[in-house]
Formats: sequence, C-alpha cells, structure tokens
Amino acid sequence: MKAAYYGGSRQIEIRPCVPVTPGEGQIRVRVSHCGICGTDLHVYLGDLDHRIRLPEVIGHEGSGTVAEVGPGVTGFAAGDPVAVMPIMSCGQCPACRAGNYHVCHQLKVIGIEAPGAMQASWTVPANLVFPLPATLDLQQAALVEPVAVACHDIRMGELRAGEYALVLGGGPIGALIALVAKHKGARVLVTEINPFRIAMLRRLGLEVVDPREGGWVERVMEETGGAGADVVFEVTGVAAGAEMMTKAAKVRGRIVIVGVFAKPAPVDIYKIFARELRLFGARVYQREDFAEAIDLVAAKAIPGDELITNVLPIDELRYGLDQMATGGDVMKILIDCQS
Amino acid sequence: MKAAYYGGSRQIEIRPCVPVTPGEGQIRVRVSHCGICGTDLHVYLGDLDHRIRLPEVIGHEGSGTVAEVGPGVTGFAAGDPVAVMPIMSCGQCPACRAGNYHVCHQLKVIGIEAPGAMQASWTVPANLVFPLPATLDLQQAALVEPVAVACHDIRMGELRAGEYALVLGGGPIGALIALVAKHKGARVLVTEINPFRIAMLRRLGLEVVDPREGGWVERVMEETGGAGADVVFEVTGVAAGAEMMTKAAKVRGRIVIVGVFAKPAPVDIYKIFARELRLFGARVYQREDFAEAIDLVAAKAIPGDELITNVLPIDELRYGLDQMATGGDVMKILIDCQS
Repeated sequence: MKAAYYGGSRQIEIRPCVPVTPGEGQIRVRVSHCGICGTDLHVYLGDLDHRIRLPEVIGHEGSGTVAEVGPGVTGFAAGDPVAVMPIMSCGQCPACRAGNYHVCHQLKVIGIEAPGAMQASWTVPANLVFPLPATLDLQQAALVEPVAVACHDIRMGELRAGEYALVLGGGPIGALIALVAKHKGARVLVTEINPFRIAMLRRLGLEVVDPREGGWVERVMEETGGAGADVVFEVTGVAAGAEMMTKAAKVRGRIVIVGVFAKPAPVDIYKIFARELRLFGARVYQREDFAEAIDLVAAKAIPGDELITNVLPIDELRYGLDQMATGGDVMKILIDCQS
Repeated sequence: MKAAYYGGSRQIEIRPCVPVTPGEGQIRVRVSHCGICGTDLHVYLGDLDHRIRLPEVIGHEGSGTVAEVGPGVTGFAAGDPVAVMPIMSCGQCPACRAGNYHVCHQLKVIGIEAPGAMQASWTVPANLVFPLPATLDLQQAALVEPVAVACHDIRMGELRAGEYALVLGGGPIGALIALVAKHKGARVLVTEINPFRIAMLRRLGLEVVDPREGGWVERVMEETGGAGADVVFEVTGVAAGAEMMTKAAKVRGRIVIVGVFAKPAPVDIYKIFARELRLFGARVYQREDFAEAIDLVAAKAIPGDELITNVLPIDELRYGLDQMATGGDVMKILIDCQS
C-alpha cells in the first residue's frame, strides 16, 4: 500500500498510502494502474507549483475497483471496475452555469489540486466515477483518460469520416488523436520528429512524416486535391507547431489547439483571416467524451499493448518521469499502483 | 470624366476616364461615389504591388447608376441605382467548389487585380451588380461595401442580440461592426486610441475606452458578471490587438479576426486552450452580407452623415490617402467620381 508524493521540483517520495474513509457522496477506489501524463511531468519539473499544495499525491489517469462506497452513494458496489474522470468544477461560475463545467473558472484537477491516483487507495467524488465493462482489462483502462482527451479534441474539431486530419505531434495524445480519428474513418497524417515514436506510429498503421525533412505541406495539398487539411490538431505546444498549424489547413479548415503553450507564440494571423480558418481551443473532456473513451478502449479500438511501452512499479515513478523528460524511447508509461 | 490611377508607391495620377463598352454579361456603371478603404491605403503605400498591374484604377467601394448593359444581361436598365460587390472568384478551386467563393484560392478584388471604381465610368460583371432602392442616396450607398464587411464579421462571429461584443479598433470597419452589432441588439464596447475617433464614436452613442488607460479587461468582466465578452472583434491588425484579443473573452467566447496583419504576431495560445476560445477568420463578405448591408444602409441604420467626414473631388484623392496615412482627423472619406 504505497503512494507517490510530489514534494517540490524533481522530488518524488514513495510513502505508505493512507486510505481515506469515503464520506458522503464519495467512493474509495483500489487503484490498479495510473498512466504518467505530460502534465505530471510539468508537475515534477516544478512548473505547476503555484497550483499544488506540497506534498501531494499526483496522477490523474487511474483505473481500479471500488473498495468502499460512502453514505448516499448508489449504483456502485465493492469490486466494481471503474475509471475516474479527474476534474472537479465549482458549479457556480459563468462557465459552469453555461454548461462548460470542464473549463470551470475554478477547475480543480485531481492529481494537482487534490490527491491523485498514484496510490493504492484513492478516495474521490462518486459523480466522477465511471463503471467499466467487466471484460475490460484494468491496465488498458488506465488509457481511458487520455483517450477521452482525444475524443474531446476530435469532437471540438468536428472531424467527420472521410475528412483529412493533420496531427502535429505524435506523442501519447497526438497518437491517440490520430488513432481515434482513423478509427472514425478520417484520413490521417501525423508529423513527429522523435524516431522511436515515428517507428511506433508507422507500426500502428499510421502515416507519419518528419517535418524537418520538408515537403509535408505539399504532401497534404497533393493528397487533398489542392484543398488542404480539413482539421489540424496542434499537439506540440511549441512555437514550431504554432507556425506549422496554419500552413496546410483548407479554406475554413479547423485547427484544434491541444498542446499546452508555456508562453505566447507567433501565429500567422493573416492566414487565419485570408483563408477564414477556425481555431478551437480544446481542454480535457466532458462526460460524453469519457463515456466514448470507455467504449473505444473496451472495443479494443486502441492498440494499448503497443502504446504502453512501460509498466513500472510505483517505486520507479521517478525513472519514468526522467525517461519522459529526456525524450527516452517511451510512449505511454503506466504505474502499477497495486503494491 | 476622370479616373484615378495608382502608378507605383505613393503615385496617383488623375487622367481622363476611358469608358469600356460592356461585353457579354457586363454592365457599365456611371460611378457616383467611392469610399477610400484601408486596402487602398496599402495599395498607395506600395504594399500590394505584387498583386497589381501598373498603372491601374483603384477603388472598390463604388455606388452609381447603370449607364449601359451588355449583351445577355437582364434585370437592369439604364439609370438604375446600383452598388457593386467587388470580388471575382474562379469557380473552380476547392474553396469555390465548397461554396466559399469569397475566399477563392484565386480571388481577384476589383480595384486591385482589375480596374476599380475611382473613375466616372466603370465596367463590371453583371453578376456582381446589386440593385439599390430608389430612395437610397448614392453618397450613402458608397457605404454598402464596408457595411457588408461588418455584416460578414458579425455573422461569422455568430453574435446574437443580448450578447456582449468587444470591438478592438474603432476605425471605419470597427465603427461599422460596433454600430451594426448595437443595431442588432448586442451590448458593445469599443477600444480605440485616436482621440478624434473616440469622440466621434461617443457622439454616435457607442461606449469607447482608450486601452492605454488600463482597466478595460476589468470593465468587461464587471459588465458581464465575471464571464467575459461573448464575441471579440480584432480589427487593429497589429500586435497590440493580437495580445488584447484573448484577455477578455468568456469561456468558449468567439474571436473574429478582421484586421489584416502584415506579419505573424504573438498570440496567447495557452488562453485559447484553457478557456476553449474559438477564433474565426472573416474576410470580405458573401452575397447575403452584401444584401443585408444594402437593407441596413437603406433603413438608415448606419449614421452615414457622421461617419463620412470628407467628400473629396477625385483630384484630391492623394490628399485623402495622405490624411489616412498620417492619422488625420478623418473617419470615412469618399471620392466624388462624377466629375
């Protein structure tokens, strides 16, 4: 029964987990697996210290089984397999009142502003707990949260079957967007610079180009009869991606902003004007995206066995974070939280 | 019978107009008035020399009466008052085939790529000629084209009655967007730095702030119950506007890109992501916008007498352009093309 605490820049401490008895409307989950997200890396590097109360248990991509239900909770019983949607909204702000609870003005992400999933026992609000089909492997179920991100991004981009999607950045989220888009019948091209990721994505049947080799804009134009991509997903979060995102979009094409930019980046605003491009910010997910992600993972539409390159014991969390920080040969790393 | 030719950077030559007999599907218009647009200023300063065959008659905001109809043209007769939608599409490119003829890959703007309206006699394709109500003053009718821009911008921004619109930049187009938005029942705040324009917009009943005085974001937030503006119109085309446009938009707020940016500008892409903002490029207009603009001008919904600060003889075009280039005390300048 362990828990992984972030204690300040590059400090991870593995301590005994302290189970919290679920209160009114809460569920205690026995965590099976938890993926490491790019956001966890930002936490680890100290970028989000203004949002986190130290020390705190991190992680927000958790799967597991119900250990205990609190008073007033119905519909769940001990042993039920579950995934947790790790965002808490205030319900009161203008965004919440308009139905956009996932971009609440006071949004709290579990694993940043509240104790996260990288512990054996995790107590969370019951309304964030989603039941899983009994047939769904709990290791694969740790992919539900990032798949929900991909589902939301695709929904925000209004991508339809038969359309051409250009995905800038083939890390875990970019890969999932590309895979879900392809599953939905879109034609997909991914740009990525990391050779390990390029090779993996190609093994998974995706078309991938290294944009540093040039010719990618011409390729998109050629493959779309000169029109350009219907939807571009900006998943890099860096200036190179911001520069690329307007280059190959069709007239009235949609650009979905997925990447997290640390600072403002130059954008070809003239191109947005001249081609009437449409940019949509897309953050986390809504309940329907989470439900769709469960269906996709359960239907084995996501090649989890390939994408999950490492399953580490919780004691090796720091190694996993360092692999991500240094651009190691990894795609999705899971932490086994059962020990 | 004169015509104003642009002959290269800062060169304007007034010469005798050479009437062109209308061919198949053409109409010859006796021009009454033509507004000077910011685009004409760009032409004058040499910024668009790559698009223009010298020397060329400029101007694209023309009103007038039908002088002569070419073979095959029906529905028009000599003397009919008209306005001309000055954009020509190829009809063949992917944008045209998708119905987006106004952002045609080979879009030609009359007054840049073809002879413009600043001449007494102007021959144009009949399908671009819109009849005007007989009651509509032809001087006011020269506002139809820029009003159509405002109608398109508002339509692209999906602005509805009761919503809050923030208009960045109160020049002629920003002023028209603000006035049309207010006419449609929106609450409107304009930011502008030119004291002459600030005073005029206030006389027209608009709320205006000088953003250099600070506090404008707080004002928008206060006036929207902490939510932010429903729609932001970026009409400055400069880096300061690109920086401002994301600051006061509500969650899922719409930002309409109207300003013409000479170069890429830094954008707070994180804000677009975090608040799920939506940016829409909006260029020129479509036929429905042009028709709506005629209705608005005919209904006297636009205070043309105030907005038109100068009506100059064609010989004084250069003076008008210099006034605009130097930030003179002008809003909309018209050229009287009847002489």
